[in-house]
Amino acid sequence: MNDLPFAARMARNLIHVCRDGALATLDTSGHPHASHVATATMIDGAPLLLVSALAVHTQNMQRDARASLLFVSPDVDGDTNTRARVSLVGDVAPVDDVDAARMRFLRRHPDAAMYAGFADFGFWRFTPRSAHLVAGFGRITDLAADDLLAPAGMAAALASSDEGAVSHMNSDHADALKLMAEVLAEAPEGEWQSVGIDPLGIDMVRTGPGPQTSARVEYDEPVGDGMALRKALVALTKRARASLQTA
Amino acid sequence: MNDLPFAARMARNLIHVCRDGALATLDTSGHPHASHVATATMIDGAPLLLVSALAVHTQNMQRDARASLLFVSPDVDGDTNTRARVSLVGDVAPVDDVDAARMRFLRRHPDAAMYAGFADFGFWRFTPRSAHLVAGFGRITDLAADDLLAPAGMAAALASSDEGAVSHMNSDHADALKLMAEVLAEAPEGEWQSVGIDPLGIDMVRTGPGPQTSARVEYDEPVGDGMALRKALVALTKRARASLQTA
Repeated sequence: MNDLPFAARMARNLIHVCRDGALATLDTSGHPHASHVATATMIDGAPLLLVSALAVHTQNMQRDARASLLFVSPDVDGDTNTRARVSLVGDVAPVDDVDAARMRFLRRHPDAAMYAGFADFGFWRFTPRSAHLVAGFGRITDLAADDLLAPAGMAAALASSDEGAVSHMNSDHADALKLMAEVLAEAPEGEWQSVGIDPLGIDMVRTGPGPQTSARVEYDEPVGDGMALRKALVALTKRARASLQTA
Repeated sequence: MNDLPFAARMARNLIHVCRDGALATLDTSGHPHASHVATATMIDGAPLLLVSALAVHTQNMQRDARASLLFVSPDVDGDTNTRARVSLVGDVAPVDDVDAARMRFLRRHPDAAMYAGFADFGFWRFTPRSAHLVAGFGRITDLAADDLLAPAGMAAALASSDEGAVSHMNSDHADALKLMAEVLAEAPEGEWQSVGIDPLGIDMVRTGPGPQTSARVEYDEPVGDGMALRKALVALTKRARASLQTA
């Protein structure tokens, strides 16, 4: 693929929309080990893991920070080789801001509240250094960390708005979330709740009956404070309404 | 889990029923790399891959045979940490018997016929040395290669019966396949076709409309020739009929 912005958006979409991935770590002998992990994202878009110290992959990560994380688009019928996927290569480390990590992870995985407080469970950040996107059969793009993550300064500045913005959207703007998910992200109809904002976009999950589905919509421009975020979300909602009226 | 035969059967079921997995290989610097691969199984139950020499994982496998392969049970709603999965640790090598590999892989992935003959595509065998089964939250069992694979002698002896048995079952015993899949494997209703037999069991896929689903049923005893296979399949069909009548 030659359209780098499109490929980068597709990779970010996979990272944010998938709720689990395959983690590759190294065992004591340097042999690779593939395991299943539940995932969320940090405010800058880096994958966030909640793992038990008793798990093999955690013991591997404690010895060697080198890891890889694979996200695959939801199953399709037909050839599994046509599924879009992204392989991230990077390093893992326990998160610094555990409170922010817990909030973001539990919004994405409410069932994890049951064990997130266990003494042996901890939050880890996966910092990607590069990524390899296979958008489908033969459609391959190599991406850099800058293509996947929001600028660190903007992420840090927006962090204080995360909790308030998400709860405000969920309590007062369910209609706007529904428009953004169904019209802009072309996701299935239902009730939609936000599970996180970041400098580049907003993540949502469909609640209620039926299979759990996620959607992400990105703003026109990155945002680095609450005011810019508010304007970006209003602009997205207007775009969704306009798109509905011309449909 | 203390029930090793149950855990081993669950691990084999994941290997055979999943049509794709996450492969962990090592890059030039020894950094782990996670990627998506379509999978089938060899006659002894070892995972079988069809990969392009141009792909990153293939270049990794050509340099270093050490690999790991993760199979995860189909998505469920609720906590993704409750999904059963098995991490295999082992070694990869190009297959010796390319004709048998092609037959077994294409029965599982008919769409791959389009590119299976391309010069850069090749079949690789993943030989597991050990496995780590997570049957659900905290239900963990370590398994050996013998728990996953059929005895080599039986697999070699049964190989000559594979093609004939599968096509005979599919053309003449669709009713038996349907009973085995729906009654014994408790899979959804539909039309069922066999995609492979092995010394321990028979693999089936649901054809026709709706999402693609797979099922596996194992015999009471391992089989090592066509006659024993025939008896084992008759016994399974009878058991399914009896189960229906007493239901």
